[in-house]
Amino acid sequence: MMYKKHILETIPYKVGATKAESKNKSEDQKIYKLSSNENFLGPSPKALEAIQESLNELSEYHHRDDSVLKKALAEHYDNGIKADQYITANSGVEIIDIICRGFLDTDSEVIVSSPTFKAYGNFATIENATVIDVPLKIPDFGLNVEGIIDAINENTRLIFLTTPNNPTGTVIPKKDVDYLLDNIPDTVIVVYDEVYFHFVEDPQFCNAAYYIKKNKNIIAIHSFSKAYGLAGMRIGYAFSTPKIASYLQKISRPFMINVLSTAAAVGALTDNEHIENTQKLISEQKKWMYVQFEKLGITYWKSEANFILFKSPIAEEKITSAFLKAGIMVRPCSKFGVKDHIRVTVATPNVNANFFEVLKALLSI
Amino acid sequence: MMYKKHILETIPYKVGATKAESKNKSEDQKIYKLSSNENFLGPSPKALEAIQESLNELSEYHHRDDSVLKKALAEHYDNGIKADQYITANSGVEIIDIICRGFLDTDSEVIVSSPTFKAYGNFATIENATVIDVPLKIPDFGLNVEGIIDAINENTRLIFLTTPNNPTGTVIPKKDVDYLLDNIPDTVIVVYDEVYFHFVEDPQFCNAAYYIKKNKNIIAIHSFSKAYGLAGMRIGYAFSTPKIASYLQKISRPFMINVLSTAAAVGALTDNEHIENTQKLISEQKKWMYVQFEKLGITYWKSEANFILFKSPIAEEKITSAFLKAGIMVRPCSKFGVKDHIRVTVATPNVNANFFEVLKALLSI
Repeated sequence: MMYKKHILETIPYKVGATKAESKNKSEDQKIYKLSSNENFLGPSPKALEAIQESLNELSEYHHRDDSVLKKALAEHYDNGIKADQYITANSGVEIIDIICRGFLDTDSEVIVSSPTFKAYGNFATIENATVIDVPLKIPDFGLNVEGIIDAINENTRLIFLTTPNNPTGTVIPKKDVDYLLDNIPDTVIVVYDEVYFHFVEDPQFCNAAYYIKKNKNIIAIHSFSKAYGLAGMRIGYAFSTPKIASYLQKISRPFMINVLSTAAAVGALTDNEHIENTQKLISEQKKWMYVQFEKLGITYWKSEANFILFKSPIAEEKITSAFLKAGIMVRPCSKFGVKDHIRVTVATPNVNANFFEVLKALLSI
Repeated sequence: MMYKKHILETIPYKVGATKAESKNKSEDQKIYKLSSNENFLGPSPKALEAIQESLNELSEYHHRDDSVLKKALAEHYDNGIKADQYITANSGVEIIDIICRGFLDTDSEVIVSSPTFKAYGNFATIENATVIDVPLKIPDFGLNVEGIIDAINENTRLIFLTTPNNPTGTVIPKKDVDYLLDNIPDTVIVVYDEVYFHFVEDPQFCNAAYYIKKNKNIIAIHSFSKAYGLAGMRIGYAFSTPKIASYLQKISRPFMINVLSTAAAVGALTDNEHIENTQKLISEQKKWMYVQFEKLGITYWKSEANFILFKSPIAEEKITSAFLKAGIMVRPCSKFGVKDHIRVTVATPNVNANFFEVLKALLSI
């Protein structure tokens, strides 16, 4: 048998539709994509400038070990995490893949807490590991810390924590992370996916760097696809303890990140104004959207990210296709593990207002 | 033990230095990089145009399954290989990585023929496979076909053929590939790395598509880093039989290739003029360089790629650093498996002439 059975049987991670796929080609309808948590302010102008300045570098091999980007990250955060503690990749999803390759095999178990980002399980499956789900607590989507500790056995290698969580928008309070880290064996690594951290306002949130500086077995995942508005450029990174980072580096390829994505990322890191504008927009618009959901009597969850999860008043397939007909892409969440819930990206005021107009019209049918 | 022993012990694939690394920062010396087989004509102008046209798409997730690029490839070659037989990746090296992940594990063996591209062995090692070297025949660097057939056992999974080969520039005659394919079990896959195929003039060469259309167990590797002049954009791809391709697709990530690299690749595929100019330049310059090597009494190998291998009249470390002092980066080849041989990229007439002036001066010391 030439093929690996578990890979043959793997179901690849299924992502949301792109705009091009959703467009009805017979019409010229404008489509608003509120299904992928992209930044409606677009990329940082400084990222665009940096790309323009690098257009004469396309034919050469650059950035053998991505040291330029790693150094820029270390300087940007200036928090004691050194350049060589960063691992770069073509998206946060590639970071998940690298982590799974590094730590999982046929005998391993990983713990996830649904509803959450599905890719963890998909990439664990490529390594033939077993995925154990310890679901978030209903109705507030709090982490079941005791449940996770109980689920750990000698085969457990990775625990995936997502904070803010996708699709619920909830964060894990520091006290829960502390308690978890104090009660797991030192052969277990916590993957701390905080790709939406720029949007957090809840003081109970604690970032991964705090734990990594204490030399805990934690790997943080960040992305340039969310607040930085560079989803199309595919840039993500991890950081961890020196030991874990140098181990994961062994699985990296040379010239991992292309020259224009590197330029865009380094440029974006210098643009505080763009991040602040983004944070302000999302914070204000979330508050406005909460009021609208309340007016409509629709259950929603307060979000620390740039999207909001709400309970659909009608079946998710029905509401999703009704929204699409009105030119709005939203994300049904049964694949994340919650049926008849919808995740909607927080966009600009006009787009958000349009979303509520359509929602209101759907409710009155 | 949290870490995998074989990954801890892995020695990552070591690439050639970048220009930035070789620059003596105290001087403003112009550096000519003849060490990485880049295209001195640069990227296709149509690739640059396509990038400019896509700069407004950076903040969105595009190209979920790279179908735009796959379709463009199928249309470009128009040879019966369908869009879904292509597997895209961020460089040819990522393709090697995907192939190794798909087919290798602790019990597997792979066959390589040194001197050749080292990355095959490095990525096989990450999967804990054993690398068997059946060296090319001396002095003409012909493939040892009988040796490879003899080396095959029930653990053999992959045979890496590189044609044109790096660093020798030699191609494997069709009759040798035919014979090999007729004499290997159907559980063995031939990886046919033809990333330099645009430069081949030898009629004995046969491209991978010919064998794939006959449904042989072959995976071809192509790259946009060589003739297309897009090394900095990190775009490679494979193609194979429908069965092998759909299997390897399972290991792919969604949104594999970023939006600007996709645009560049699709744009470059439409630019026959740029490829023809590149082919003409390399063909003419190789002939001129052969004459210069002969005049100097230096042994070299006729090349079907955009580089030439020659026997160094002095120790490789010495000649490499002497060239660097004169502002020229060349590639010493002991890491490929041939000591005191140098690989030099075929560049533009002035740069090539400069290379021979420096070489001549070094010989007269």
